[in-house]
Amino acid sequence: MAGPACAGSVPGDGHPYDADTAVVAGGEHRFTATISDRWNGLTGRPLGGFNVAVCLRALMHELPFPDPLAVSSFFLRPVMPGPAELVTEVARRGRRMATGEVRLKQDDLERVRVVATFADLGSVAHPRIFGARPDLPPPELAVDVLGGETRPGATITDRIECRMAGVPGWRTGRPGGTPDVSLWMRFREGRDADTLALPILVDAAAPAVFEIGETGSTTLELTVHVRARPAPGWLACRVTTRCVASGYHEEDFEVWDSAGRLVAQSRQLALLTGA
Amino acid sequence: MAGPACAGSVPGDGHPYDADTAVVAGGEHRFTATISDRWNGLTGRPLGGFNVAVCLRALMHELPFPDPLAVSSFFLRPVMPGPAELVTEVARRGRRMATGEVRLKQDDLERVRVVATFADLGSVAHPRIFGARPDLPPPELAVDVLGGETRPGATITDRIECRMAGVPGWRTGRPGGTPDVSLWMRFREGRDADTLALPILVDAAAPAVFEIGETGSTTLELTVHVRARPAPGWLACRVTTRCVASGYHEEDFEVWDSAGRLVAQSRQLALLTGA
Repeated sequence: MAGPACAGSVPGDGHPYDADTAVVAGGEHRFTATISDRWNGLTGRPLGGFNVAVCLRALMHELPFPDPLAVSSFFLRPVMPGPAELVTEVARRGRRMATGEVRLKQDDLERVRVVATFADLGSVAHPRIFGARPDLPPPELAVDVLGGETRPGATITDRIECRMAGVPGWRTGRPGGTPDVSLWMRFREGRDADTLALPILVDAAAPAVFEIGETGSTTLELTVHVRARPAPGWLACRVTTRCVASGYHEEDFEVWDSAGRLVAQSRQLALLTGA
Repeated sequence: MAGPACAGSVPGDGHPYDADTAVVAGGEHRFTATISDRWNGLTGRPLGGFNVAVCLRALMHELPFPDPLAVSSFFLRPVMPGPAELVTEVARRGRRMATGEVRLKQDDLERVRVVATFADLGSVAHPRIFGARPDLPPPELAVDVLGGETRPGATITDRIECRMAGVPGWRTGRPGGTPDVSLWMRFREGRDADTLALPILVDAAAPAVFEIGETGSTTLELTVHVRARPAPGWLACRVTTRCVASGYHEEDFEVWDSAGRLVAQSRQLALLTGA
């Protein structure tokens, strides 16, 4: 099912983000991709949010708007590095928005289902914000969450840099007790995030429940609402969990850009998986 | 496409909620329903959350678990009172959870697409909650949001009762300025809410943006995470908006039951529609 690459004129085609989310058209509403092992989370498997970005990259070839606005993803089965097939479907093409669905399959088995509405967020004027940006020292005074190291197996730590006001409690075996964490994030290797990258970022920090002693979490469902195109530079993020019940927990994630705008809000429902 | 009613042994079959969300099996993965005009929102059209409940009622006949756990709905086109067709599909049946999709169609045109994971929330033990229940006077000391009236056209006000600490600012032409509202909710006509009813409730209060002078809002996407089965009685709810940008706003909704448990968290992305 080889076909022309669909990357288009994306700036920075050589960056791992651009290269690894690329899809290849392979027939009507069908695309192929190679799921990279460069975006693995703590589980050692590709991060859910990364798989979503690949799905959105396929869908944006079907929909006439450039920015994901509302994205809901259900993680049905584990995704493994290697070949994947993406089947797309358009639900509605409107004047201002368009909605479609993507199913990511490996070995003919559906792994991830994404429904997304795209729009044009090119001119977000005068947002009204109720609430404050995360309280963080400037990035140059913040500390690297992993102390400058990366985490073997969790290759996402080679791709994304996280800085906090101090070393998080869970890193030193003393969880702080409150699942409410603020951090700076950005891609390593010199690329700024665009709206398609936001589903990766909101899923790429250590889960907030690490601060209440949990050690693992698997996403079941992730909804991302993109509110504006991020300005270049560091992104100020806040991760919070309010309720852990029956082994499930939700996690909220806010992303604010260097211009002080709230650019993404996400919530995921996840299952605790630690020992 | 007539067929046997699928209502099963739901308690209170005579209550409008049970009667109006009933679906009729009409072939493999196909159901029919009659969308009632008894759940119309301020737009005069059936509330998005009500349409979702009808969709879930169809899906629960396909999935072996009783409770919706994560529900994401995209509202593609307006739904009108009258006949509707529901087409279901099972994405995955697992040991602990199952996920499926429903498309609600009228006149052969898809109106609502719902993807939902079901599970069994029968035994939620010792939830850990970080955050407080909405601050409200006891329901018997709270005031009816509509001053005891209902709103003509908005038949939802005949179905659901809302009480607050005081008359909301928007009702008297003096919006309070902060899109953060706490209220009590319950079905009128003597029925308690179950997990399937929670998508209706989270969409049934006046939008929080009314408190910043907005006068209309249409839901584009609604995600509901159900965290526990609600205990009988009044439900304490909190509605908040943090960002209004480019005509879009998000709205978060929390539902707490009479036993003090957080039973649902939802977020919707909506489009301002007021004058």
